[in-house]
Amino acid sequence: MKLYDMELSGNCYKIRLLCGLLGIDYERVPVDLMQGQHKTEDFLRLNPRGQIPVLEDAGALIWDSSAILLYLARQYGGEQWLPLAAKPMAEVMQWLSLAQNELLYGLARARAAKKFNRPWDVEQCQQHGRLGLQVLERQLATNVWLAGSQPTIADIACYPYVALAPEGGVALAEFPAVLAWMQRIRELPGYVAMPGIGAD
Amino acid sequence: MKLYDMELSGNCYKIRLLCGLLGIDYERVPVDLMQGQHKTEDFLRLNPRGQIPVLEDAGALIWDSSAILLYLARQYGGEQWLPLAAKPMAEVMQWLSLAQNELLYGLARARAAKKFNRPWDVEQCQQHGRLGLQVLERQLATNVWLAGSQPTIADIACYPYVALAPEGGVALAEFPAVLAWMQRIRELPGYVAMPGIGAD
Repeated sequence: MKLYDMELSGNCYKIRLLCGLLGIDYERVPVDLMQGQHKTEDFLRLNPRGQIPVLEDAGALIWDSSAILLYLARQYGGEQWLPLAAKPMAEVMQWLSLAQNELLYGLARARAAKKFNRPWDVEQCQQHGRLGLQVLERQLATNVWLAGSQPTIADIACYPYVALAPEGGVALAEFPAVLAWMQRIRELPGYVAMPGIGAD
Repeated sequence: MKLYDMELSGNCYKIRLLCGLLGIDYERVPVDLMQGQHKTEDFLRLNPRGQIPVLEDAGALIWDSSAILLYLARQYGGEQWLPLAAKPMAEVMQWLSLAQNELLYGLARARAAKKFNRPWDVEQCQQHGRLGLQVLERQLATNVWLAGSQPTIADIACYPYVALAPEGGVALAEFPAVLAWMQRIRELPGYVAMPGIGAD
């Protein structure tokens, strides 16, 4: 299995984290975003969106972090990480959507603007991100995990850009249930860290 | 089944369209966004994000358009609209993500800025949306449907804001494969239209 990857990408980290938790070995192929490698014709053949992560596995070529999480959960995770019945599966999907909306266009963009000089409106992004954190806080005030009674790819999809939020200028102190949930994720067997996110 | 709905919302239309194609009857509960009904405490109990659509069905309460599509496909669509094997399911998910990213934050935001006076940067949104259209065009130049060999919720998720793109100032003429795909969707048995999208 090959993961086209960049160390500082929260979207790539989602995949590395799930691989860690599932005990999956894979080869990391670093993609040099600073040199525009993700926009070359060679890379666009792997992913027409020109983004990382991309996963190659036994004839499957999957782009998009949510799609890769789903693929790994279905292929290697039994029903623990992605239940198959309609209602619990849709509940997992709700949080994958939050991760792709408020967290990505809010928290991750605020971080990208501050850390990588991207042209986003930082305040608008921070505000959008805080809306996402409020929804997470509301859910985690009365639930141990985001969907159902055990960790799923819902938690894995939301965790990285929440944990990296302070790099985008969004403090987490006012979200105590979110902080406790982050700690629970860090205690999962197989947990791996990334730069900017604590290992303990 | 109850759908909390607004006629002009492309995200709500995704659900109405899939219900039409699946032949599902449901009750529409209009939500008055102009009056801020979606931000009331009553509504936040249905959806902590304060957004439409929300679906109530036999004890399930699902928010988020992608999650509702997944729910309906699993509950009522067999494996046609959402295949269950890892690779084809992940392929469907790729396009659900495109719909939640380039199409929503690009095409839908450009439309919302122009049509509903929302505070988004129209040109930035149009540019982001065109990137999504290019990815769709590339896929549809050699494929009849977005994922696999028959229509899935991937097509349903992407169609509305693509079809509404001209309302956001994004012309579709340079995307002939996308236009042909839109026509195929309109010919599906059970197809329903919405204001701004042709019925024929």
